[in-house]
Amino acid sequence: MAIKLHGHPFSAATHRVIACLEEKGLQYEFLHIDLSTGQHKKEPFISLNPFGQVPALEDGDLKVFESRAITQYLAYTYADKGTPLVPQDLKETAIVYVWMEVESQKFDAAAAKLSFELVTKPMLGMITDDSVVEEHQEKLGKVLDVYESRLAGSKYLGGEAFSLADLHHLPIVSYLFGTKTKALFDARPHVSRWCADILARPAWQKVVEMMKH
Amino acid sequence: MAIKLHGHPFSAATHRVIACLEEKGLQYEFLHIDLSTGQHKKEPFISLNPFGQVPALEDGDLKVFESRAITQYLAYTYADKGTPLVPQDLKETAIVYVWMEVESQKFDAAAAKLSFELVTKPMLGMITDDSVVEEHQEKLGKVLDVYESRLAGSKYLGGEAFSLADLHHLPIVSYLFGTKTKALFDARPHVSRWCADILARPAWQKVVEMMKH
Repeated sequence: MAIKLHGHPFSAATHRVIACLEEKGLQYEFLHIDLSTGQHKKEPFISLNPFGQVPALEDGDLKVFESRAITQYLAYTYADKGTPLVPQDLKETAIVYVWMEVESQKFDAAAAKLSFELVTKPMLGMITDDSVVEEHQEKLGKVLDVYESRLAGSKYLGGEAFSLADLHHLPIVSYLFGTKTKALFDARPHVSRWCADILARPAWQKVVEMMKH
Repeated sequence: MAIKLHGHPFSAATHRVIACLEEKGLQYEFLHIDLSTGQHKKEPFISLNPFGQVPALEDGDLKVFESRAITQYLAYTYADKGTPLVPQDLKETAIVYVWMEVESQKFDAAAAKLSFELVTKPMLGMITDDSVVEEHQEKLGKVLDVYESRLAGSKYLGGEAFSLADLHHLPIVSYLFGTKTKALFDARPHVSRWCADILARPAWQKVVEMMKH
């Protein structure tokens, strides 16, 4: 049975999963969940994700939600297809886990808030809260200082190869590059080099193309 | 070479890793990082975790930080020792990943804030912000409603066996059980049964004993 991705074209978490599917070169069917009518809060979607949030993925009889759980499932299940996104060696994998957790616990905590204030709110006609932006830009700057040191000695966050630890950043980095927060990335040469590298990946470019339609 | 855990006896993230080491029956050396003198913000600790937070783990020449990355490393590297904490089957693993992500993205977002307001602040002589407590109790209640449904049909979050998806909850559940937030857990019978089960595990009881000293 084919892979089915239930998502929304403007959802960062949906973009994270599409980037992974494209890196793996997997065929999938995209099912558009209409957030404007609350389709994500009703059956049948709510049976795919009881939290009522996109995306959710079906692979045969398996149902998975949470974007970072979906990417891990795909990376391990389709290990032999497309780009390897997790190492084989357990010690190398441990370092990839560390930076996946850093993305989730540190980067996303600051960056997703900025993306909400600077991208989502204007899109919905809501007013950006400048004090929230300032507070989270300061937090993000501190996180990026650690990234700058890490990326001075390592091509990617998880090591010398692109991995899920990098891929998970793409949707929010891409959104923030359309805002004044881009300056935080530009001010750090190794972070800047890394962003340019991962944003240029053909799999990510497919996500960008999809967003234009 | 032996495993070295750098942590603090009151740190929830440190407890998460100790619970994992005890489930695995692994020998380790505990190195107390003195947070009161800022030992976690200086060398040599800062080389173990550039974010300057406990815990960090050394296993031979491997250095790992972020508690949930450490537990995954231990679960896979010592798969044949003690309690299995991740399934072998990839589809079963996917479901464990889902609930690990739910803990990190949904449960912890609400529960760690409550633990800070109701446990950490009083311990440090700071004033609890009741409006923050109310807001996050409402958020946690909604998360626990989903847990209640899940645990009505499954012994543990990740399936019929205890796994990292359950273990990751232990430190914050344990802290919140000493506060008024316990009522949110008590009000949900399946959640309540699950909490009693995981808190009674001998590995967790060792963490509780350690906190008494």
